[in-house]
Amino acid sequence: MQALRQRHPVVMATRIEPDVYEQVRSHLPEALYYESARICALAPLNLVPWQPGTLGILSAGTADLPVAEEAAITAELSGFRVQRLWDVGIAGLHRLLKHRDVLYQADVLVVVAGMEGALPSVVAGLVDCPVIAVPTSIGYGASFNGLAPLLTMLNSCAAGIGVVNIDNGFGAAILAGQILRTAGRLSQSGSH
Amino acid sequence: MQALRQRHPVVMATRIEPDVYEQVRSHLPEALYYESARICALAPLNLVPWQPGTLGILSAGTADLPVAEEAAITAELSGFRVQRLWDVGIAGLHRLLKHRDVLYQADVLVVVAGMEGALPSVVAGLVDCPVIAVPTSIGYGASFNGLAPLLTMLNSCAAGIGVVNIDNGFGAAILAGQILRTAGRLSQSGSH
Amino acid sequence: MQALRQRHPVVMATRIEPDVYEQVRSHLPEALYYESARICALAPLNLVPWQPGTLGILSAGTADLPVAEEAAITAELSGFRVQRLWDVGIAGLHRLLKHRDVLYQADVLVVVAGMEGALPSVVAGLVDCPVIAVPTSIGYGASFNGLAPLLTMLNSCAAGIGVVNIDNGFGAAILAGQILRTAGRLSQSGSH
Amino acid sequence: MQALRQRHPVVMATRIEPDVYEQVRSHLPEALYYESARICALAPLNLVPWQPGTLGILSAGTADLPVAEEAAITAELSGFRVQRLWDVGIAGLHRLLKHRDVLYQADVLVVVAGMEGALPSVVAGLVDCPVIAVPTSIGYGASFNGLAPLLTMLNSCAAGIGVVNIDNGFGAAILAGQILRTAGRLSQSGSH
Amino acid sequence: MQALRQRHPVVMATRIEPDVYEQVRSHLPEALYYESARICALAPLNLVPWQPGTLGILSAGTADLPVAEEAAITAELSGFRVQRLWDVGIAGLHRLLKHRDVLYQADVLVVVAGMEGALPSVVAGLVDCPVIAVPTSIGYGASFNGLAPLLTMLNSCAAGIGVVNIDNGFGAAILAGQILRTAGRLSQSGSH
Amino acid sequence: MQALRQRHPVVMATRIEPDVYEQVRSHLPEALYYESARICALAPLNLVPWQPGTLGILSAGTADLPVAEEAAITAELSGFRVQRLWDVGIAGLHRLLKHRDVLYQADVLVVVAGMEGALPSVVAGLVDCPVIAVPTSIGYGASFNGLAPLLTMLNSCAAGIGVVNIDNGFGAAILAGQILRTAGRLSQSGSH
Amino acid sequence: MQALRQRHPVVMATRIEPDVYEQVRSHLPEALYYESARICALAPLNLVPWQPGTLGILSAGTADLPVAEEAAITAELSGFRVQRLWDVGIAGLHRLLKHRDVLYQADVLVVVAGMEGALPSVVAGLVDCPVIAVPTSIGYGASFNGLAPLLTMLNSCAAGIGVVNIDNGFGAAILAGQILRTAGRLSQSGSH
Amino acid sequence: MQALRQRHPVVMATRIEPDVYEQVRSHLPEALYYESARICALAPLNLVPWQPGTLGILSAGTADLPVAEEAAITAELSGFRVQRLWDVGIAGLHRLLKHRDVLYQADVLVVVAGMEGALPSVVAGLVDCPVIAVPTSIGYGASFNGLAPLLTMLNSCAAGIGVVNIDNGFGAAILAGQILRTAGRLSQSGSH
Repeated sequence: MQALRQRHPVVMATRIEPDVYEQVRSHLPEALYYESARICALAPLNLVPWQPGTLGILSAGTADLPVAEEAAITAELSGFRVQRLWDVGIAGLHRLLKHRDVLYQADVLVVVAGMEGALPSVVAGLVDCPVIAVPTSIGYGASFNGLAPLLTMLNSCAAGIGVVNIDNGFGAAILAGQILRTAGRLSQSGSH
Repeated sequence: MQALRQRHPVVMATRIEPDVYEQVRSHLPEALYYESARICALAPLNLVPWQPGTLGILSAGTADLPVAEEAAITAELSGFRVQRLWDVGIAGLHRLLKHRDVLYQADVLVVVAGMEGALPSVVAGLVDCPVIAVPTSIGYGASFNGLAPLLTMLNSCAAGIGVVNIDNGFGAAILAGQILRTAGRLSQSGSH
Repeated sequence: MQALRQRHPVVMATRIEPDVYEQVRSHLPEALYYESARICALAPLNLVPWQPGTLGILSAGTADLPVAEEAAITAELSGFRVQRLWDVGIAGLHRLLKHRDVLYQADVLVVVAGMEGALPSVVAGLVDCPVIAVPTSIGYGASFNGLAPLLTMLNSCAAGIGVVNIDNGFGAAILAGQILRTAGRLSQSGSH
Repeated sequence: MQALRQRHPVVMATRIEPDVYEQVRSHLPEALYYESARICALAPLNLVPWQPGTLGILSAGTADLPVAEEAAITAELSGFRVQRLWDVGIAGLHRLLKHRDVLYQADVLVVVAGMEGALPSVVAGLVDCPVIAVPTSIGYGASFNGLAPLLTMLNSCAAGIGVVNIDNGFGAAILAGQILRTAGRLSQSGSH
Repeated sequence: MQALRQRHPVVMATRIEPDVYEQVRSHLPEALYYESARICALAPLNLVPWQPGTLGILSAGTADLPVAEEAAITAELSGFRVQRLWDVGIAGLHRLLKHRDVLYQADVLVVVAGMEGALPSVVAGLVDCPVIAVPTSIGYGASFNGLAPLLTMLNSCAAGIGVVNIDNGFGAAILAGQILRTAGRLSQSGSH
Repeated sequence: MQALRQRHPVVMATRIEPDVYEQVRSHLPEALYYESARICALAPLNLVPWQPGTLGILSAGTADLPVAEEAAITAELSGFRVQRLWDVGIAGLHRLLKHRDVLYQADVLVVVAGMEGALPSVVAGLVDCPVIAVPTSIGYGASFNGLAPLLTMLNSCAAGIGVVNIDNGFGAAILAGQILRTAGRLSQSGSH
Repeated sequence: MQALRQRHPVVMATRIEPDVYEQVRSHLPEALYYESARICALAPLNLVPWQPGTLGILSAGTADLPVAEEAAITAELSGFRVQRLWDVGIAGLHRLLKHRDVLYQADVLVVVAGMEGALPSVVAGLVDCPVIAVPTSIGYGASFNGLAPLLTMLNSCAAGIGVVNIDNGFGAAILAGQILRTAGRLSQSGSH
Repeated sequence: MQALRQRHPVVMATRIEPDVYEQVRSHLPEALYYESARICALAPLNLVPWQPGTLGILSAGTADLPVAEEAAITAELSGFRVQRLWDVGIAGLHRLLKHRDVLYQADVLVVVAGMEGALPSVVAGLVDCPVIAVPTSIGYGASFNGLAPLLTMLNSCAAGIGVVNIDNGFGAAILAGQILRTAGRLSQSGSH
């Protein structure tokens, strides 16, 4: 991490358990730890969004939070503004529908869901912006460690969904950031 | 079919292609054919619902119709009243939500869906009655001939869903009929 | 659990190991624990069946008991009368057949089986009421953590079986409850 | 076939469709064809069982007959007495139970079943003799071309079952023949 | 198609084989057919890109072209400028590397590959823009109809890749279009 | 075990780890423990083969021994004479071929193999007696916990092999015992 | 093919069915066709091995011949001497063992097998040279289109086996050629 | 190990964890331990390459090192010269391309990669020598413990790749050694 720090304003590592962080901190006292996201980072303290665009991140259930937070913290450390919408799974549609304004205002949406993983399809049917779907390994039995939501998301009847690996909140945030940066470049280049 | 007819008021066969029906009709001119459901039946002509309860049948897409109709015709030939709700997949939630009254009035719901197969979860989150989920082999690629919607339905975050085999509209209707007949037995037994 | 308690007469949590219960009890001394079912509940003490209909629950082997008890306790906490029939797997048909009266008197049957998972098919061939099949992860080798009984149940040659996720005793009981409540509504509505 | 005939009293080929047989017959007019078993054979005309022991062969459904007949004809051409018990699937246990005497009199049982494939388990629970289980590719959807009954048979809770490949009626008959011939060797060796 | 045409400037249908198109043309003589993409469309004749941004589309092999063209024509009919880069699979890296300028100038890349499906990973390691990966069913044996490249793309060691279903060129183009349109919204919202 | 003992001369339990045995022994000091087979038994001390026929048991590698010993001890406790042939895997054919006499003298063979699981095929090509194949979970990577040898054995090009579940040494011995007992009955009945 | 011909002494295409070859021949009368290998080639007529080393190619069954011939013809067109050993599957070990001299004289062995696919393991246990294993899709049921022999070969207990894709005779021959050419380079470089 | 030592100049065991080595060392103080490769060996101290040819070993990521080192140490203990190229995964092609000279100078390449496992395809497109591909179980989610890179390598669009089992660095080195020794035999036989 120290080596990377010379070249990057923000350095981060994912899937860091608390005991590993303790070891890191003994060498790098300024290392930050985001427990729910299991992310350890070296970052400037006054972290504010400095990149254009808003990323909306949804999680279907509370058990999906570690993956959703991994996406959220990664995006925030990358300089993006994040809107969180937790526990809006499709078994209670009203919880999702009452936050439609958040969905409409986001420029990109990352949707995290385990078990049957149907939330991205429902969301993509409601919005026009790109949707990045993250299956999680939350579930049991026939979820087969995330295979079920992965297949659900790949087979979505709603077009405009890009899927990342099971539990890959980090990858979803990186893709979302590339989308927002592309948009920023495009809108500044005046090519239209 | 002729042998079965001696003992049953209604005799039916599923998965009958038109050319097979033509062969049947040459021997049994009174045989009826329900083309969309691919069902051939020997049934009294004036078929009216004579059993209590209403069965709501939903299909996510138009390609799921043969399976949904197999369920519908099976139920009607079994003496039940059927409410059809076709093409109400989750990519356009408004199509489903504007028919909420149909959902609320049904005593049992059979929900047929291919591709990602998420419709039963959404429906089960809206109603209190039993939901029977039928995955279909509609889809391509990672749907693996219906494996994707089958796993989706088994992992539903909404409780109260019973799943049948891929494309098994017949089995879903039989189970729905047994549920509705349970009501008849219960009310006669005076156990409440 | 305390929050849920304000709104519901009975609050329950599944898959609670004894040490987790000990933590719960230190905060909620009135919490009950059903060890074989691994269920922790806040419920009125004088729990009697107050809903019409009887739920029969069968388990194929003794190792399937935790899942079968999860279904049984869930149903009883939901207000239903439960008839238990443990260890009636098909390797010894006589054990099942000598309890035929229990099968015939039930309004809904939940059948729990691991390994080859054939019990629901045999039972559904004997009765007319709805059968809810619960595959368990009991077994080894080619059971693939419950995949074998899951496929068995989905492919049953006996119609009228609804399948739930592997080890999902809770979901089976909820579905059974919805079936019984539907029957109650139907028989009271006098629509027949 | 002509080459093999020099060395063997009976020569047979499995999985022969009628049009292939027509070609064979044009060269070998004495070739016999067993249509239901899809077997073509060169055999002495007055075929009688000359080997000790009786082989019972059961099929669960009528669609399993080609595989069951492949086993039966293979065994008869190998010189064994065969008892056929067709269409005794577990959805109607009484059909099986009323033929218990056939089961008890057989020295080896070959049990052929598709769909959920549970018949061998039920049979093995009733008898003491060796049971050879043959899964078939009969079924659809989640039977995955015979994977479901194959897993069922491998996971049987009844011990004493040997499983062969999907649709392998021939292999089951060969194994049954080897078991019966073991008796001949044993009685001659005087080891008991 | 005629109904849809009232409401949309461009109407298209994918996976249209030539004989189906012939039927369509007999009713709608103005229907266009893009044979390599198997797309049938009702579109204004003078089709020019009118939306900002450039979409680069790569295919690994010539056998992947139908899917790549499905993506390209869908994007062009949606109003986007498309840069095609065909047959640049990783077995001959120089073919890809000599077109690096095309990669750098694109705002979004759609990368289509069958067999081992590694092209998106290599491309994502070279560029900063969003990459949409499309596995195809091209291959044989252990490609398992596209499962192999699908898994490859989901496990990419290069972050910033969104994956769509096997052979889903259409979905990739829709997602690419949504990404490019995000730029338009961003620049109008003045949020940067 | 105490209850079973009243009715059976020998009582045994498989998959007993040493610490479980210690618990058993504290209650039943006469309980025997076969460590390599992980079997605990209550058996008469002077155990001699009293049933006709010899069972040959082969293991491919030393890591397969626990399963092979489970089969061997089960057979010996059932009263059969057992010939062990350990570590005769096909990578060194000479080890197998120099023991051909053991193969020829056995009445039934149980062949235990993990990894690629090809030993039963080679053995069945050498002998005429029934072969029971036991796949083991020994291996790593693409053995997928025994799936690889299981498939190998089911697809054997040598006829006359019955397969049991992965690691199921007990079931193989029970089936072998039924074969030998059938042979004994047949040879005594004088039906030949 | 004409374009490739300018740059290569031999041009070949695999998986060419006879009717496709007829089309090719109408344009390129000098095109050769190897029917059993389904290979079409433009090659000098007097084809003799001009590269050092001998490639031994084995096939387990006669049904594996198209794949084995694809390997053999590819190697011969590449300039290598090929020793064919057909129909030496492990169910009849003597057929293989009587050709041990061929095995010992080869510099590289390509071993083609379907069904259980165990031949490469047996061969690799007999020789010291590199073995290239080619699983074929020959088989049925639990061979799952070549998955069974593929897994067998990957899990071989004999070290020194490299596996190629199912039915990939071409790839095996290319790899064998690279091994032989490496040997040629090494032996000429005098590095030893 | 002591027994093997009598007959072999070098004796080695793979997958030895440090605590197992400690036990070995207490009996065999001269046993060497290669920690990163998890190999324990009895070898002459002054180990120098004495066999002709150079083996290049590449690893895609740092997490693949234990498998890559297992291959490297195995090859070195077998007497071969090894060139290591660590952490040259395809997400950063420049890391690989700047070491092209190492690739060109090697006589055989072993390429170790987890996650998407595409490195062997890229490498095989750059060189002419044999490539042995080793998938590793490094990854998560849809890598399914190494299934993803295994399929990638089997489906490589670059010909001339032989694949070994997941994590099987040892087997790859043995195969590489056999390839290099083939050269020695070839040059001595004077067959060219």
